Amino acid sequence: MTPFIQRESSIPLYSQLYHWIKTEIEEGRLPPGTKIPSIRQLTDYLQISRNTVEAAYQQLQAEGYLESVPRSGIWVAEIEERLAHSSEEVPSLVIERERVRKSVIDFKYGNVDVIKFPFKRWKKCLSDAMEEEGELLSQYSNKQGEWSLRREIATYLLQSRGVHTRPEQILITSGTQSAVEIICRLLKLQGKEVAIEEPGYSGVRTVFVDQGCEMVPVPLEKDGLSIYHLQKSKAKAVYVTPSHQFPFGMILPVGKRTQMLNWAYQSAGYIIEDDYDGEFRYQGQPIPSLKSLDEEEKVIYLGTFSKSFLPSMRMSFIVFPPSLMKQYGQKFSDYDQPVSPMIQVAMAKFMHAGDFERHIRRMRKTYQRKHQTLLNSIEQHLGNKVEIIGEKSGLHILLELQGQAAPQVIEKGLKKGVKVYAPSRFWLHPISDSQRYIMLGFGGLSIEEIEEGIALLASCI
Amino acid sequence: MTPFIQRESSIPLYSQLYHWIKTEIEEGRLPPGTKIPSIRQLTDYLQISRNTVEAAYQQLQAEGYLESVPRSGIWVAEIEERLAHSSEEVPSLVIERERVRKSVIDFKYGNVDVIKFPFKRWKKCLSDAMEEEGELLSQYSNKQGEWSLRREIATYLLQSRGVHTRPEQILITSGTQSAVEIICRLLKLQGKEVAIEEPGYSGVRTVFVDQGCEMVPVPLEKDGLSIYHLQKSKAKAVYVTPSHQFPFGMILPVGKRTQMLNWAYQSAGYIIEDDYDGEFRYQGQPIPSLKSLDEEEKVIYLGTFSKSFLPSMRMSFIVFPPSLMKQYGQKFSDYDQPVSPMIQVAMAKFMHAGDFERHIRRMRKTYQRKHQTLLNSIEQHLGNKVEIIGEKSGLHILLELQGQAAPQVIEKGLKKGVKVYAPSRFWLHPISDSQRYIMLGFGGLSIEEIEEGIALLASCI
Repeated sequence: MTPFIQRESSIPLYSQLYHWIKTEIEEGRLPPGTKIPSIRQLTDYLQISRNTVEAAYQQLQAEGYLESVPRSGIWVAEIEERLAHSSEEVPSLVIERERVRKSVIDFKYGNVDVIKFPFKRWKKCLSDAMEEEGELLSQYSNKQGEWSLRREIATYLLQSRGVHTRPEQILITSGTQSAVEIICRLLKLQGKEVAIEEPGYSGVRTVFVDQGCEMVPVPLEKDGLSIYHLQKSKAKAVYVTPSHQFPFGMILPVGKRTQMLNWAYQSAGYIIEDDYDGEFRYQGQPIPSLKSLDEEEKVIYLGTFSKSFLPSMRMSFIVFPPSLMKQYGQKFSDYDQPVSPMIQVAMAKFMHAGDFERHIRRMRKTYQRKHQTLLNSIEQHLGNKVEIIGEKSGLHILLELQGQAAPQVIEKGLKKGVKVYAPSRFWLHPISDSQRYIMLGFGGLSIEEIEEGIALLASCI
Repeated sequence: MTPFIQRESSIPLYSQLYHWIKTEIEEGRLPPGTKIPSIRQLTDYLQISRNTVEAAYQQLQAEGYLESVPRSGIWVAEIEERLAHSSEEVPSLVIERERVRKSVIDFKYGNVDVIKFPFKRWKKCLSDAMEEEGELLSQYSNKQGEWSLRREIATYLLQSRGVHTRPEQILITSGTQSAVEIICRLLKLQGKEVAIEEPGYSGVRTVFVDQGCEMVPVPLEKDGLSIYHLQKSKAKAVYVTPSHQFPFGMILPVGKRTQMLNWAYQSAGYIIEDDYDGEFRYQGQPIPSLKSLDEEEKVIYLGTFSKSFLPSMRMSFIVFPPSLMKQYGQKFSDYDQPVSPMIQVAMAKFMHAGDFERHIRRMRKTYQRKHQTLLNSIEQHLGNKVEIIGEKSGLHILLELQGQAAPQVIEKGLKKGVKVYAPSRFWLHPISDSQRYIMLGFGGLSIEEIEEGIALLASCI
């Protein structure tokens, strides 16, 4: 935020700030509903006293220019005579939550590294998509997803995941949750038992519950989901994360994969294989995906671009067995494709030119370095005070605590400026044991932040 | 498609074509799964004889390079030794369905005009969104939708539709269908009666049916939905298209709007107001939206960018009454936002700079001209042989036929090179009367195409 403040002026600083903001609002550059920086943020940013900012804000609130909403922030208020719609850009002073200068090192799961993201190439693909496909943009797109993208995904899955599929079997969706919704409706799982990992990904569990499925939480063993418990259940389908169990991180061994397939063949059940994080494996040999081992059309494969590309693309895909794809075509023919064809075609171009593979290779190296830094820092600062869980692949790990419970550590961490998370919500039926773990996502942090963050965390454990 | 064909060469044309395509496939420029032009398309395009193309294709099919799929087309086949992934672009010879040179004038509903679309400005907004919001791209976005976009929508709705709303009440969705899904679940409409217009928009009706609602088709009167029948029903909600009834095009008068609101207040029902096409009104005074008349938080407003911007953006929004938005926040807190924040932020910038309003104004003029051409051409060529229905606004009209049924006219039209549509699928319970109408969308056609199309159609009626 760069209000024009003259420290040498005879006009008091609070008055300068007050007039500057008031003018911005009156001239429409700060329209009603704009969130403005908190007092603390602006104090930090302008390096002026808290009192100065407070006085200016109070005056503006008293005059009805600003509005303070408890637990939300301070906003530009609606004013009666709205001025002509300004054609200027939002001034860069509008600090939004996301762009606040980092004061906390946040081990948030789900963030990815964009420092090395090939923005230039991606922008070129977007631009080409719009120029070459002008007519495409004027229409509703292919309901199943753009053919060119499905073709590239098929090629990619064969090369990188050993999955033989044809573009005809692929459905583009706007995220894993909507993919699971579609599967529930297609397999008519309402009122039926569906097996899930306990603990497991709660975002998908919510969808099953909301679609009226009966949840069967299947306990985890050291090497993943208990096949014994799955066999004992009456589940019509099982949802699994075999490449990197969420959140424990174990990789399902090939023996268990075969047993799971046999369960599906014998019970006429379906396996929903969520292959998130399959791209980022740091140790050991790759294990074939369930889909690539399936011989009886019982595996439904879910892939996402959220981890391998950008979470903000909101693009996932389902690979159906041919029989189910046919049913989808019949039952869902009235449904429009939810992902913008502009993004789909741009992604197809990005993949076709080899940029996607290059990006994945680059990111695998980047994440491997971050991952190694994380393990080294933990070793150095925390030694035998914690146990590391799920460290062979993916963009997060768990730490098992000794003595302390997660909420205490999280609270202490926040005070020290490091944010870690409790995975307890991933249990359908939380047990006291679930309090022993904390979760650390490292995708979006730099090497230095990881080192500093673990050092800070060590002082809390 | 520009294969290198030398007409003066001693090598037969079919052989030149055969070798050219074969090389393209072998060198990976035409990868497996690519759809290639039909025999007729290529014949037209290269201006060579049909036999020549047929001979080349037959040879390539016999050798396994191409694969013909009945009712789908001719595709490049999978070959055993897939060549290294080419880094070149798909050659421009790949003619996809959408880009086939138009041989038919297609009055398809839903297409929009992109000739005057401000691609340059839009690309700048996309590019700025990516550059300024780098961190945003690396994260999952705000579950309700980007604040900046919701703020712009609130401003726009107030100025253009008289709807007073705050950004906090707006939810961004990936299309009207997913909006209706969310509403069904939020209002718990499963097993409940929901009133719809008969005929009405089938894309939304399908969603209600799939969500387990009981459909109550309410007949239309000359001025829209019959309030009497609505009052007689036990409906918990009604879905209406008051700005431009779909497909009949009448505009719901203000008196009926008030009656409908009273129905909602007395029966504790909800009104789902789909304000599609509200931007494109050619005659008469604007009528206030139901949302702007609502005094008891009973109207849920649906808006879309498909008509006013591009159908390919796949972006719609819901304006909830505050009480329902609160419930949404509680019940749907686990659900991710399905629309890419890149597109959301770009759209916010586009709107903030005034480009959106300028675009709407420009398109309103463009569509008004097209619409007038359409009415004039019908008057000139069809005179009193048809009656025009729903001509005051929107991007389509209906024609009521005399004597002939729609299927006959559609079939004759196709032979003459003009494609029109039967609206009969918009009836939940089609009656014989529904065969008397044909539907003409004109958004995506040029003035010349509209004139030519109607002249062709006249020879079929």
